[in-house]
Amino acid sequence: MPLSLLMAAKEKGFQQSQMAQWNRSGYFRSSGSRDVNPDLETERQTASFSVERLTAILDGGADNTRTRRAVEAVIHSEPGFSRENQYFQSQNERYEAAVRRSVYLKEKMHQMGWTEDGPEIKYCYRALGGDLAFNVHRVFKNSILALGTDEQIAKWIPLADKYHIIGTYAQTELGHGTFLRGLETTAIFDISTQEFTLNTPKISAMKWWPGDLGRSATHAVVFAQLYIKGKCYGLHAFILQIRSLRDHSPAPGVIVGDIGPKMNFEHIDNGYLMLQNINIPRENMLSRFSQVLPDGTYVKRGSDKINYLTMIMTRIHILWIEVIPTLLKACTIATRYSVVRRQSKLNPGDPEAKILDYQTQQQKLLPLLATAYAFHFMNAYVNEFYNKGYTEIRQENFDSLPELHALTAGIKAIITEYCTAGAEVCLRACGGHGYSALSGLPFLYTKLAASCTYEGENTVLFLQTARFLVKCLAAVHSGQPIPPSATYLSSVDSGKCQARTSVDFLKPDIYAEAYRHRATRLLGNAATKLQGLVQSGAEQHEAWNQCTVQLVQAAKAHCHYIVVKNFIDTVEKLRNEAEIQKIVKHLCDLFALHGIFSNTGDFLYAGYISGDQIDMVTASYLDLLAVIRNDAVPLVDAFDFTDESLNSALGSYDGHVYQRLYEWAQKSPTNKQVSQAYARYLKPLFQSALSKL
Amino acid sequence: MPLSLLMAAKEKGFQQSQMAQWNRSGYFRSSGSRDVNPDLETERQTASFSVERLTAILDGGADNTRTRRAVEAVIHSEPGFSRENQYFQSQNERYEAAVRRSVYLKEKMHQMGWTEDGPEIKYCYRALGGDLAFNVHRVFKNSILALGTDEQIAKWIPLADKYHIIGTYAQTELGHGTFLRGLETTAIFDISTQEFTLNTPKISAMKWWPGDLGRSATHAVVFAQLYIKGKCYGLHAFILQIRSLRDHSPAPGVIVGDIGPKMNFEHIDNGYLMLQNINIPRENMLSRFSQVLPDGTYVKRGSDKINYLTMIMTRIHILWIEVIPTLLKACTIATRYSVVRRQSKLNPGDPEAKILDYQTQQQKLLPLLATAYAFHFMNAYVNEFYNKGYTEIRQENFDSLPELHALTAGIKAIITEYCTAGAEVCLRACGGHGYSALSGLPFLYTKLAASCTYEGENTVLFLQTARFLVKCLAAVHSGQPIPPSATYLSSVDSGKCQARTSVDFLKPDIYAEAYRHRATRLLGNAATKLQGLVQSGAEQHEAWNQCTVQLVQAAKAHCHYIVVKNFIDTVEKLRNEAEIQKIVKHLCDLFALHGIFSNTGDFLYAGYISGDQIDMVTASYLDLLAVIRNDAVPLVDAFDFTDESLNSALGSYDGHVYQRLYEWAQKSPTNKQVSQAYARYLKPLFQSALSKL
Repeated sequence: MPLSLLMAAKEKGFQQSQMAQWNRSGYFRSSGSRDVNPDLETERQTASFSVERLTAILDGGADNTRTRRAVEAVIHSEPGFSRENQYFQSQNERYEAAVRRSVYLKEKMHQMGWTEDGPEIKYCYRALGGDLAFNVHRVFKNSILALGTDEQIAKWIPLADKYHIIGTYAQTELGHGTFLRGLETTAIFDISTQEFTLNTPKISAMKWWPGDLGRSATHAVVFAQLYIKGKCYGLHAFILQIRSLRDHSPAPGVIVGDIGPKMNFEHIDNGYLMLQNINIPRENMLSRFSQVLPDGTYVKRGSDKINYLTMIMTRIHILWIEVIPTLLKACTIATRYSVVRRQSKLNPGDPEAKILDYQTQQQKLLPLLATAYAFHFMNAYVNEFYNKGYTEIRQENFDSLPELHALTAGIKAIITEYCTAGAEVCLRACGGHGYSALSGLPFLYTKLAASCTYEGENTVLFLQTARFLVKCLAAVHSGQPIPPSATYLSSVDSGKCQARTSVDFLKPDIYAEAYRHRATRLLGNAATKLQGLVQSGAEQHEAWNQCTVQLVQAAKAHCHYIVVKNFIDTVEKLRNEAEIQKIVKHLCDLFALHGIFSNTGDFLYAGYISGDQIDMVTASYLDLLAVIRNDAVPLVDAFDFTDESLNSALGSYDGHVYQRLYEWAQKSPTNKQVSQAYARYLKPLFQSALSKL
Repeated sequence: MPLSLLMAAKEKGFQQSQMAQWNRSGYFRSSGSRDVNPDLETERQTASFSVERLTAILDGGADNTRTRRAVEAVIHSEPGFSRENQYFQSQNERYEAAVRRSVYLKEKMHQMGWTEDGPEIKYCYRALGGDLAFNVHRVFKNSILALGTDEQIAKWIPLADKYHIIGTYAQTELGHGTFLRGLETTAIFDISTQEFTLNTPKISAMKWWPGDLGRSATHAVVFAQLYIKGKCYGLHAFILQIRSLRDHSPAPGVIVGDIGPKMNFEHIDNGYLMLQNINIPRENMLSRFSQVLPDGTYVKRGSDKINYLTMIMTRIHILWIEVIPTLLKACTIATRYSVVRRQSKLNPGDPEAKILDYQTQQQKLLPLLATAYAFHFMNAYVNEFYNKGYTEIRQENFDSLPELHALTAGIKAIITEYCTAGAEVCLRACGGHGYSALSGLPFLYTKLAASCTYEGENTVLFLQTARFLVKCLAAVHSGQPIPPSATYLSSVDSGKCQARTSVDFLKPDIYAEAYRHRATRLLGNAATKLQGLVQSGAEQHEAWNQCTVQLVQAAKAHCHYIVVKNFIDTVEKLRNEAEIQKIVKHLCDLFALHGIFSNTGDFLYAGYISGDQIDMVTASYLDLLAVIRNDAVPLVDAFDFTDESLNSALGSYDGHVYQRLYEWAQKSPTNKQVSQAYARYLKPLFQSALSKL
């Protein structure tokens, strides 16, 4: 058998002696050794700033860094949390491992005294790269907290908190996602029994995608169209039990299962759910905002607008917990690998060059590094916005809701778009090794790809932002007040960019103004077209549809402007950190100039920037690449990801890339299981050849 | 147990009755029924052209279509070729299935009288979606045919042809890919024994990535630095046996294995190979172009430039066998799904609209459809180029080699870039269901992503094209002859686009000229910068590096121009097919205008196109979307992929999307295997809850 022979003593002896020889020659070090690849070490010795200080700033203070590292140390010291074999696991194995980690985490948090709303939980999540089960269980809880009465909260939340029940949030159906009003599941109230009867009337009404549903959940918050005496009252949320707590079997009338393999998230049991004549008591409709009385009277109470806050909060949450850190990781992996990997020669007599010394590689990675910082710094901005809105909304003042909604929709869309594209660039920038699962990059990319769809499909979100902006523009024209994030629409356009040299383009005022001009112009054009279509007799809906390509462009330009503006503000706030302010200013410049360089048409179109000025932008942009390249490794080191969290053969702190690829490959089932392919198909063929060689 | 209960008689009864009910209501049809989803059927009734006729044109004649369908029928009728469970298989299972299909295919071809160079083989490959083993075995054979002497060919090829041996092509090393001269494996000639001794001197010299190496190959063509009497003669190719033909065990001194999981290509056993003091006879160096005599004399014979042809041919091959059909498939899936999926309302009173009726969805998919046609039509152009060059080169006239090399490098790079990006757009355009493995789209995307790296990393390839173009431009300036694909560089630039209305932009002369201008201008700018840097004292290599971002832009613009030009020529040749010419002309216009719309800055920069003209482009472009939308389904139907070849729950000919998603999910191991997660982790938690509910 190949495997047994491979591992035979003689071979093993060779393998060990070969390793020992390479080790002596400095090319192959044993695991656990902390010495660093010299090509990576050099990069760290020339940092223009204190990495530790920048880490503290990114963490929001040195105290947070300390807490984070303490949490990471606890998590990484427990084998039960290990993600070591993740890339070799089947969907079934990944699911089981995620459940294991989640249950262990609950125990560990209890043991350590960490609470659900304490600072540690997000660091646990970071340490585990989000590979946990029961994410939708949290949504289940939040929906009860938001939509349930005090009695309902008192009944269900304690059970959910202790994992005595596992809940899911069953909203999306096979045939319905974005358009909630189109959901087809029905809940019919029967006065005689005081029960709701839930049904899945069509295959397209089957619940499809809810996480934790496929194999775990015992309960579900199910969204269904409420019918009383034949009249439809629209969507409402109902709690129902879907599996037995005794033996986990599906409840009578419930068909439930797993939707099968996906591009990623194999650790999550996304599921399907069909209901046939499931009866639940009247108390199981979540009734904070609307209630069905025993006689069938439908009562509405207060405004349920506050529910938007849950959606908004979820979007903000995934950006800072799931999305942005994933880009930071991809940058860390690709940047470290790019100073370890050598290829071709820059000058004929030299040794092969580090690939990060090629301008094309810098062009791929360094704007992403700047983007990673730009997005990380958006956290403060969005939180401030959210907290202000939250306070007002809790006081039943919903004035800021449209802006908060539009802002988070657009920011979610632009960040997930850029992060996804960025991770793909990182993957491909690592060549063949990036394509290996062991690089970690395929995992990061495929994870990000989902974020463009979940919690609001990005095109839909950009159009929501655009709708808000069109209203803001109308307010500008009619002299109405304008929400803070859109006040720039009313400022006067200077008509021409004032830069005279390439150095002028390193002035934040210059590029901020260019972005402002672009955002205003694109929105203005789209709105004018829309108005023109309506005035010439088109139906409002049809006119809107005919403008959507341009409205999306306008919304993107708006979000891009906000990110640039916030980056500029962040740089200003670093005035007491001279060294760090300097490098962050470079990143801000790079982010802004890369955006102009990559979208020149938007700035050239109305002559705001001339062809000569584009040459200046290009020159400044390319010069910045060479400057930031020198700090590239310190800039990713500052993200301070542990090797365990990165889980990448290419991205580890010590840079022993080739050794890790080799060692990790040994663990692959392809090297541990003997394939039937040889005995069944190949052996008979080879036997024929024996006599001929 | 959840599973047994799920399948219990009662549940099954419910499930069946539910299905029967849905079936009667027309929402759920049994498999095998050929009736088509009415939303898809409607689209086919309004085709503006004969789908069958367009299929014949795409196939290069109705005879080819007949042959293709006959081959597909044979392949799909054999269960041994099935790819039905592909998305549920582990890496080990996929490998075994690929070996099985390859061995069956060899038998089937023999049985049918199909030959290795006959027309059927490419249709077999198409029917099987390329999921076969031994792809690198073919490269092994080709390298012997190209580099071997007649005796070497006579010895090895018959064995390889019959699969009596399986070969691999071991070139790439852990630390070396693109830069071949940097390979570190050594082959030292020993006069006393008349043998070469091969070694892997460092871990970075380990062969890494070769396909068919990990678990299958018995032999390898290994590239190594040849040393004779201490002098290095550079890279040469050696044949060596790496596994026993008797029991498949690794040969003494050989460490070989699989490199583990990847983003895709799990059916291929990409492998690693370490050599320690492997001795092979002198005859095992492939010696058509260079030979080592018994006394150690090194003899070079003729020019080995002809080897470039192998590389060029491989690139052309993968484009038409692997890459372009994959984009065609992705378009088929996403387009069909987009007329079956309904979401939100275009007009308040209407039912939910087909998502393809939204302008934003058209903007995502229809330019890709145009791109798919553009690339498919490049086949004729590239083949003509290749055949001309091939004839000359066989006659030892190498004049056309640089052009052939530059052209295929750039075309490979632009096509793989666009196809990869396109498949990603298709995936995301299908929302959550696109992300399900069962859509087939993750598989198609991840497959394409690899093509940007293998057979030449795209940035490197674009720079090779750019180097050729810079030389062409110098030839223009010095009045030297210019290769045909670059003659346009010498034509006079009109300075301003002549279009006066949006309809003018539907004239091929107008947009071809715009692309020509852009390509010439970008190349000119990059070359001027390069010259300026050298003149101001920069080293040639450093100057080149500082221009590479712009040189890549120039190479892309050149390739883009060639594709547009060829599309225009193709439309002209369809003059006897009025209906088809009309729709293909629309696609050509769309491809060209989408390129301008997406890169406005390149055309605005020097004032060639004005802002007002960009508005005309935009108007024409958006109008075209609405026109082509009406033929979108017939246009993908014309690709004529079988359901088996598409292997997509979203893309089947009959459009029963939701039914297939549900039925396929049932086959997932997540629904067949009971997870330990329940018994180990969840059950203990739920027991605690029982008393409280």
